[in-house]
Amino acid sequence: MTTDHLPETSAVAAHRGRPRDANRDRALMDATLTELQLHGYSGLTTAAVARRAGVSTATLYRRWRSKEDLVVGAARAWAENLGPDHDNGDLGSDLGALLRDKATALEGPSGRLLRAVLGEAAHNRALADVLFGAFVIPLQERVFALLERAVERGEIPPVADPLVVAEMVIGPMVSHTFLVPPQEGDAGTTPGTDIAERLLPYLLRALGSREL
Amino acid sequence: MTTDHLPETSAVAAHRGRPRDANRDRALMDATLTELQLHGYSGLTTAAVARRAGVSTATLYRRWRSKEDLVVGAARAWAENLGPDHDNGDLGSDLGALLRDKATALEGPSGRLLRAVLGEAAHNRALADVLFGAFVIPLQERVFALLERAVERGEIPPVADPLVVAEMVIGPMVSHTFLVPPQEGDAGTTPGTDIAERLLPYLLRALGSREL
Repeated sequence: MTTDHLPETSAVAAHRGRPRDANRDRALMDATLTELQLHGYSGLTTAAVARRAGVSTATLYRRWRSKEDLVVGAARAWAENLGPDHDNGDLGSDLGALLRDKATALEGPSGRLLRAVLGEAAHNRALADVLFGAFVIPLQERVFALLERAVERGEIPPVADPLVVAEMVIGPMVSHTFLVPPQEGDAGTTPGTDIAERLLPYLLRALGSREL
Repeated sequence: MTTDHLPETSAVAAHRGRPRDANRDRALMDATLTELQLHGYSGLTTAAVARRAGVSTATLYRRWRSKEDLVVGAARAWAENLGPDHDNGDLGSDLGALLRDKATALEGPSGRLLRAVLGEAAHNRALADVLFGAFVIPLQERVFALLERAVERGEIPPVADPLVVAEMVIGPMVSHTFLVPPQEGDAGTTPGTDIAERLLPYLLRALGSREL
């Protein structure tokens, strides 16, 4: 589990000339994710995170003043990285790429973090707001951009409610990844990438695409 | 929170002539939901559940032999009750009713339970299977039934992948209820019922409905 790598942020921090702090931060974020998966928000203790990261609790508290602060920081650090928004030339390719990126993200560390803290976010507004910013907004922005390109290309009529379209992209991917237990013989394609392919024609039709 | 009522099961048990046991069971299921919301799966203890329900831990263990057994039992007891599947005469009304039922369920005790244990289900197969049976299967069955009626009425062409349609009903409702923090001025309509209305025309179009 600790073999997952945090993207960019740590590397950027390292370039600023504080590699030791950056490594320590990365170890703390790694450890926070692992502890959240094992024990949930309620069961997580800053002592266990510090122990797993190989730092003292004093060091942890210099950077994060509370458990909530630490978990909110981890949610920010593990924000979903959906990859760049390429123009693939047509709506089907753009939407297909986004669905596959979303499947990959949900099955990776960011998805595991989201799943581990979703319950806590029900009564923790700071955490709920960070999750919204880290997991919903970036996807909405990619949906809005690809819809705009498709309208410009004349592939679909203007979209009356792009927010709902974003929910139709996020939602089935989340419910499928989080609620459908893996089946025997799922090897090869993951449930997420499988549902991404199957969802695509329905989404294109919902958008009134002329491709179909 | 303890004003929520468990449906059927307890009443049925009461009819079998053991009202005291039924009341105790209901109190235990109520208490389990509350403790799960407050402390998550990891933070829940059978002692705290027994205390909140006003029974001894010995009594709790006579009925549920472990914490896992208790939580799995609660997930079963709080299984989503989507209400009956009426034939409303046309696809738009059938689908609209289902979306509203789903919104109501997600905002009620069954939705709160689901949210509280989703993280634990990532590494607890018994719980994952119960959630699938209690929250996914009943909705899939209602989707399949309403699609069949719509095809019979000649409203839509045969549906190639009804499972994906079910994900398009569950998914956006789950992601919207669990991931979008409530906004100021949301009074009146809840976020769930709002998204249900907005989703409907896109779903009808995805299904190739002639209504539109």
